[in-house]
Amino acid sequence: MSSRRLIIAVNFKTYVEASGDEAVSLAKICDDVAKETGASIVVAPPMPDISRIASIVDIPVFAQHVDDVMPGGTTGYVTLENVKASGARGTLLNHSEHRIKVAEIHDLIERAHQLSLSTIVCTNNTGVSRACAAMGPDYVAIEPPELIGGDISVTTANPKIVSDTVTTIRSVSDEVSVLCGAGVKNGVDVRKAIELGAEGVLLASGVVKAKDKMAVLLDLVSGLDG
Amino acid sequence: MSSRRLIIAVNFKTYVEASGDEAVSLAKICDDVAKETGASIVVAPPMPDISRIASIVDIPVFAQHVDDVMPGGTTGYVTLENVKASGARGTLLNHSEHRIKVAEIHDLIERAHQLSLSTIVCTNNTGVSRACAAMGPDYVAIEPPELIGGDISVTTANPKIVSDTVTTIRSVSDEVSVLCGAGVKNGVDVRKAIELGAEGVLLASGVVKAKDKMAVLLDLVSGLDG
Amino acid sequence: MSSRRLIIAVNFKTYVEASGDEAVSLAKICDDVAKETGASIVVAPPMPDISRIASIVDIPVFAQHVDDVMPGGTTGYVTLENVKASGARGTLLNHSEHRIKVAEIHDLIERAHQLSLSTIVCTNNTGVSRACAAMGPDYVAIEPPELIGGDISVTTANPKIVSDTVTTIRSVSDEVSVLCGAGVKNGVDVRKAIELGAEGVLLASGVVKAKDKMAVLLDLVSGLDG
Amino acid sequence: MSSRRLIIAVNFKTYVEASGDEAVSLAKICDDVAKETGASIVVAPPMPDISRIASIVDIPVFAQHVDDVMPGGTTGYVTLENVKASGARGTLLNHSEHRIKVAEIHDLIERAHQLSLSTIVCTNNTGVSRACAAMGPDYVAIEPPELIGGDISVTTANPKIVSDTVTTIRSVSDEVSVLCGAGVKNGVDVRKAIELGAEGVLLASGVVKAKDKMAVLLDLVSGLDG
Repeated sequence: MSSRRLIIAVNFKTYVEASGDEAVSLAKICDDVAKETGASIVVAPPMPDISRIASIVDIPVFAQHVDDVMPGGTTGYVTLENVKASGARGTLLNHSEHRIKVAEIHDLIERAHQLSLSTIVCTNNTGVSRACAAMGPDYVAIEPPELIGGDISVTTANPKIVSDTVTTIRSVSDEVSVLCGAGVKNGVDVRKAIELGAEGVLLASGVVKAKDKMAVLLDLVSGLDG
Repeated sequence: MSSRRLIIAVNFKTYVEASGDEAVSLAKICDDVAKETGASIVVAPPMPDISRIASIVDIPVFAQHVDDVMPGGTTGYVTLENVKASGARGTLLNHSEHRIKVAEIHDLIERAHQLSLSTIVCTNNTGVSRACAAMGPDYVAIEPPELIGGDISVTTANPKIVSDTVTTIRSVSDEVSVLCGAGVKNGVDVRKAIELGAEGVLLASGVVKAKDKMAVLLDLVSGLDG
Repeated sequence: MSSRRLIIAVNFKTYVEASGDEAVSLAKICDDVAKETGASIVVAPPMPDISRIASIVDIPVFAQHVDDVMPGGTTGYVTLENVKASGARGTLLNHSEHRIKVAEIHDLIERAHQLSLSTIVCTNNTGVSRACAAMGPDYVAIEPPELIGGDISVTTANPKIVSDTVTTIRSVSDEVSVLCGAGVKNGVDVRKAIELGAEGVLLASGVVKAKDKMAVLLDLVSGLDG
Repeated sequence: MSSRRLIIAVNFKTYVEASGDEAVSLAKICDDVAKETGASIVVAPPMPDISRIASIVDIPVFAQHVDDVMPGGTTGYVTLENVKASGARGTLLNHSEHRIKVAEIHDLIERAHQLSLSTIVCTNNTGVSRACAAMGPDYVAIEPPELIGGDISVTTANPKIVSDTVTTIRSVSDEVSVLCGAGVKNGVDVRKAIELGAEGVLLASGVVKAKDKMAVLLDLVSGLDG
């Protein structure tokens, strides 16, 4: 198992129940749980909520996506410089719901590194994971598309894709951390992910749609302890 | 001349000098000028700054763009529901730097209307202006691409495109207001726009890149008085 | 009823059963039926088959789409100049499966006109139909997305959308012809379309997936006779 | 130096001087030179010309791009199945003028392999080359964007990027062949490319814009001989 910091990344997606004031509430719960337990929790709220949440919580706020364009005459796009100025500390890239071009991923990883922003590149299979790891992001998050938003965790439905991804990524890089996602819902799923060689999880509906979000987060965090 | 409310819409684009804390400062100046003068000023800050600015100023905050997707599994996109939840009161659509599909414009105008969000559809010539006006947005903003970011105001360089746009839009709708933009920098340009039949202006660098932003805004506003 | 030439436009889409040699066969059947009956039939085969089919048949060959780019350094895109050089006489634009930007539609209509290429702009509702008609294409083809590929013809399922489209288009242009599509399968559907004010139909699976394609085409053509 | 077959790939782009009848003429010249010299020459004509050229020449015809969609309801897109049915034997992917998503490249390489179509994935730097090679295409073609269409061959202007690409690709795959492109114009450039470890070149304007295309092709081919 890695000695790196294990993380739980919570993607709010664009759910209305995690947008605006509700996004602020959820981010505060994540912040509270992180402070209480010492766990590393990262939140990725809807784009317009980044600045407000970053000004309120201490845990890292990530964008869900950035566009590979430069600041200036790029109305309506979101640049790395914008999210940094708004207080974000990193970004998801190439989420299954927002795939981008390979040259864009490469360029954004390099530019994010220069701006001290972290990158989590999402991937759909081991081949794409290897390709993306070869470009040197901080994290690769493997999420089989057919399991996203479902009830069965990738760690149960397809544990081999997680361990295979760890193996194939290690063949091209020692430095890229591996997350896994899709269907992750509780501490058992998190523990299994770590046993499979992942260094954390990326999840969304498991937290966003939970009635008792704090209880779910505490359970997830419990899985981080060996 | 119309009896409608005349407006000055300030697009911050993604300029670093109008992003994060600087976006907040600029929005506050706009808010101050609006309160002092009674003028209608609308600000369109970088996407991640919307929530923070909307929680601070009283003038309308607009998004620079929204995606024609629904809330939920649309990571990294920006929905109408997101910007509304974050406090925005409207959005630019189809900016020259971010063109969208005709069916998207139609769909977003209808959905924005249901959400009580205003829409400013940007256009590049009289033909596109007429087409977009036919779909019933609140505003059409004509901006000849070759003049955007330049030193000469559209009202000087090509006054005919403004008056022609007003005429052609009136042939398909009595209710769509017309703005003009590209190179607009001062009160004289604003006054000329209104004389040509426009009901306000859309501008960016003229404000964002000004050294004394308050002075520029006060000058622009002075052009609103017949 | 219009005195304009009534047409039947057959979109091969990218069906394998209408690609390569099979595309050539289908185009020849359309050509034969057109010659036999005197009807106007237009074929829109898969992109790579345009040149071969145009060199074999006499009826007009249309592209299913073109990109709004200029000839030269635009590898892998399809320009108006390319399809013209390959023998095409027009193009579909903004098909429901391939929507494009409003400024692109406007630009492509103007450039196609200069190149003497015809344009059929596809639309999804009356609002978008009106907007697109305002830009002056040769045809607007209304196809309600929910009926495309289905078993019930738009002329039966939603005749009002056809007649409303004709009416709204006439409010902005006298020169744009109206086609309708979605679920059109036989001569009765064609006759109904014309009674509703359309000047022809656009169809795909009704011909492409038919066992006896010649029989289906002859039946469709029979509907053109008042 | 590799014992693999060395190739010269000629991208016609969308130049009018290599479209329609002119595309056929150029493809015939390439075919003649290939037959006369025994060299491997691949042609990538404009999309609508694929079927006609493939029915005339014996050398491999490649598409310049394919879309990652399936046959059927994908009007105006170009599928792998379409180009195969039209006689193409492979395709360029991710050309600098037509970048695509990383998951699309992965998917298209796998599906092309199943259809016995070859793939040439274009890349812009060593990092992206390594990532793309990791997904197992037949060829990676490195083309520094700043040199494309220029007068100085990549083999002269930046020989290190070619040799570095070969090295980094070998670190993830023994089976991917490397091409280089940008500014390649003559046999000296081809010979240098091969000395740097490439197994051929990809070029466009050097052939398309040449007055005596046959002479240029014969000169290029001469560089293939050690």
